[in-house]
Amino acid sequence: MFEKINEYALRCMPFTPQDLEKFDSLLQKKTYPKKSFLLQEGEVCQFEAYILKGCIRSYHIDHSGAEVTLQFAIEDWWVSDITSFHSQTPSVMYIETLEDCELLILTPETKEKLLAAVPGFERMFRLMVQRNLAQLQERLFRTISTTAVEKYLDFLNRYPAIPQRVAQHYIASYLGFSPEFLSKVRKKLSADK
Amino acid sequence: MFEKINEYALRCMPFTPQDLEKFDSLLQKKTYPKKSFLLQEGEVCQFEAYILKGCIRSYHIDHSGAEVTLQFAIEDWWVSDITSFHSQTPSVMYIETLEDCELLILTPETKEKLLAAVPGFERMFRLMVQRNLAQLQERLFRTISTTAVEKYLDFLNRYPAIPQRVAQHYIASYLGFSPEFLSKVRKKLSADK
Repeated sequence: MFEKINEYALRCMPFTPQDLEKFDSLLQKKTYPKKSFLLQEGEVCQFEAYILKGCIRSYHIDHSGAEVTLQFAIEDWWVSDITSFHSQTPSVMYIETLEDCELLILTPETKEKLLAAVPGFERMFRLMVQRNLAQLQERLFRTISTTAVEKYLDFLNRYPAIPQRVAQHYIASYLGFSPEFLSKVRKKLSADK
Repeated sequence: MFEKINEYALRCMPFTPQDLEKFDSLLQKKTYPKKSFLLQEGEVCQFEAYILKGCIRSYHIDHSGAEVTLQFAIEDWWVSDITSFHSQTPSVMYIETLEDCELLILTPETKEKLLAAVPGFERMFRLMVQRNLAQLQERLFRTISTTAVEKYLDFLNRYPAIPQRVAQHYIASYLGFSPEFLSKVRKKLSADK
């Protein structure tokens, strides 16, 4: 059960078997059926979750009621609202399972215990957040400065495993399109083939 | 010279005077005149810079040649291309001083030394990146889902010190507007007053 997550940790830092044992002992396994909310707006996020199995979406609902998808996450990714988790303030996000999911969870308490016992994990979490930041920067550049067709092709290229697993209207809300507009973009691309 | 940056560090973590001494001894002070490039596309970023004085802009030039501003940074902020700095890969960004600047700089080598000597600084850098990530997430939500007028008002509200210090066309490129369009938005707002 801990094989994948230990591999993940070892890619960040040469932890000892004792370090990993401590890590594994603090992780809590949880399963959620498809379409469960892990977090809703106004709640305080109490988890950083590593995905063993399944697909998860995080999104925000804007003041006009439209959904903006922030992230799709699948096996070997982490999902959380880092801001809410760390400041223990109410979230502005929803995090929902799109498939049946198996997760390994750290809470604020177990994460604190882990960092106190093995400070080297600070580095793993810093690298995680850094990677996240780099992705989000690139996404912002693309959101501001590419055409609709480019945005969609880039999405397919970056996340080839996602389109087979999530509904089209979720992809539309990731790209900032209406579902009708995404449908037009896809038709145009098929016609151009 | 180190008073402000030590205060910054202490807001993240209760460092000892010895920790801060080590930190300060590794920082390099540099000054740059207005309109200097700290980084250009294709170069590998060799700094994380704390701003003692001045104003800096980071931006990206997209394939159509348009500038997209990622960040404006002023006193007590850090500026870097974290992705390029950490992976030591060529940057896709430009980082340019908009005013005469005084900076305190960490290089990959001095940062590594600092983290080896005082691992508690991992936490400070993780918090910095997390804060950055939270801001960028919010900005993405706003970019995707608010109107032009809302975007501009929100910018004024969040960064009240910036508009007096940077040219309007830079603000336009932050918001993803053409300069002409920003000018229209501003006229509309004055007319509505």
